[in-house]
Amino acid sequence: MARHLSGNLRLPSLDVAAFTALLDEYMPQVRDDGFAVREMGWGRCVMDVGASPRTIRAGGTISGPTMFALADVALYGAVLSQIGHVPLAVTSNMTIHFLKKPPPRALVGEARILKPGKRLAYGEVLIHSDGDPDPVAHATGTYAIPAATPA
Amino acid sequence: MARHLSGNLRLPSLDVAAFTALLDEYMPQVRDDGFAVREMGWGRCVMDVGASPRTIRAGGTISGPTMFALADVALYGAVLSQIGHVPLAVTSNMTIHFLKKPPPRALVGEARILKPGKRLAYGEVLIHSDGDPDPVAHATGTYAIPAATPA
Amino acid sequence: MARHLSGNLRLPSLDVAAFTALLDEYMPQVRDDGFAVREMGWGRCVMDVGASPRTIRAGGTISGPTMFALADVALYGAVLSQIGHVPLAVTSNMTIHFLKKPPPRALVGEARILKPGKRLAYGEVLIHSDGDPDPVAHATGTYAIPAATPA
Amino acid sequence: MARHLSGNLRLPSLDVAAFTALLDEYMPQVRDDGFAVREMGWGRCVMDVGASPRTIRAGGTISGPTMFALADVALYGAVLSQIGHVPLAVTSNMTIHFLKKPPPRALVGEARILKPGKRLAYGEVLIHSDGDPDPVAHATGTYAIPAATPA
Repeated sequence: MARHLSGNLRLPSLDVAAFTALLDEYMPQVRDDGFAVREMGWGRCVMDVGASPRTIRAGGTISGPTMFALADVALYGAVLSQIGHVPLAVTSNMTIHFLKKPPPRALVGEARILKPGKRLAYGEVLIHSDGDPDPVAHATGTYAIPAATPA
Repeated sequence: MARHLSGNLRLPSLDVAAFTALLDEYMPQVRDDGFAVREMGWGRCVMDVGASPRTIRAGGTISGPTMFALADVALYGAVLSQIGHVPLAVTSNMTIHFLKKPPPRALVGEARILKPGKRLAYGEVLIHSDGDPDPVAHATGTYAIPAATPA
Repeated sequence: MARHLSGNLRLPSLDVAAFTALLDEYMPQVRDDGFAVREMGWGRCVMDVGASPRTIRAGGTISGPTMFALADVALYGAVLSQIGHVPLAVTSNMTIHFLKKPPPRALVGEARILKPGKRLAYGEVLIHSDGDPDPVAHATGTYAIPAATPA
Repeated sequence: MARHLSGNLRLPSLDVAAFTALLDEYMPQVRDDGFAVREMGWGRCVMDVGASPRTIRAGGTISGPTMFALADVALYGAVLSQIGHVPLAVTSNMTIHFLKKPPPRALVGEARILKPGKRLAYGEVLIHSDGDPDPVAHATGTYAIPAATPA
């Protein structure tokens, strides 16, 4: 598929350490729950979350809300990779499709921006089990970026 | 709006105590995080979740993943209100729109089924702050019901 | 379900004749295809479309794109019922679930706004066959309202 | 992004001529409106639609329902590329985000399957103006495949 990838060699406005520090400060629960930043690129963010008593569901799978949270925070990272340190960017909408039950193993969420914007940014997140590229969930969503962005 | 409400005087297949017991057994994390069942009706479930260090975000609001989890579990309750004790019914897809930032107060999610089905059930969830009917989020989604349902 | 309905006794900013005239001017194809305005209320619009060679699909049902178009234009009417004559309001996103195959009969779409806004308005549309309240499709979506609105 | 692309070197179960013939037979309106099949691959379908009085909207852009119809039929092609001649596969749900106003020029929709399935297939469609890779809309959706498929 001919995707528009211009600009993806640019450096991200936040790197792994800077986005991790932002999460530590503004979303400590996310970090406490085991979500970690793997990679940052321009318009791109890869995060993971380990299997734990918090994320495992009956039947030995990972819960839907865990996958939603992974998609949400990975997309947040992809948005901030282009606009920098704007902690108050907020999710405006998100659609998630669960494609198959993941085994009780770490999940990886790969987010990328399809449409950057000054007020609204739109992207998608593909979630798969660590070590298996077959997708277990796919999400798309919009972030709203506040008009006055903090320095 | 002329909604199809036939059957909404039927008793639910699971009542508040039975659905609470099912959550305690199959999704203890949900209960640990403070999600509670308020009402069950036929094709209808009302749940709430209190503000807590787990659910509050920077800026004094409730996190998006908390609202998603509330929508997901309330819709699960609405599905089970019609099909009974089927713990392995799973979310197939969910779309959530965040309409305004809720204050750091308890949230209420009111789910109802728009289309029951043997294999797929579809419904919507309206989320508002406790004591304020103005919606803060709205979700729609589909649950997949396993072919062979446990007794 | 305790919905927030304050204001629904207000008169709409556009009535049936005014919204029909706007469609005739700005979306003549919609009118040519048989879409008609039935009712306008504050934050509410009811439209219909007849069965015709254009809208009927193999198997004697109404096509999905016809239902999407009905949802889209009914939601447009509901948005304009609150903001008045703003023809350049545009759909930002739409999610539609097809719930059962409609018979080859007129369809009715009932839209209402769940969250008005200056820049973004969000609402839902329930579609049913004329004379049968059982829903055949349900859509939710967001309209973007241009900053400078024409007089 | 590490996508799961195994199998994309397989030949499609329907080629361009076969899918075009199926549309001519089962969805003649789609063909009458100028939708044409450009490419078929395994789990992949590229379609286009020209600008015409039917598809152009006030302000010199292409209508939202035209983009929805393009996404819907391209995804249908991608589903049939894997399951063959099953005309009664139907859209179960679709989410579309409109990313920018396209100019009044031909649009191209590129669909691919992210999750094939016996009963449900899920995929995405990226829409751009002919000759400009920047996306103007992005859709994701599920097709339901009838249990008994006609020969």
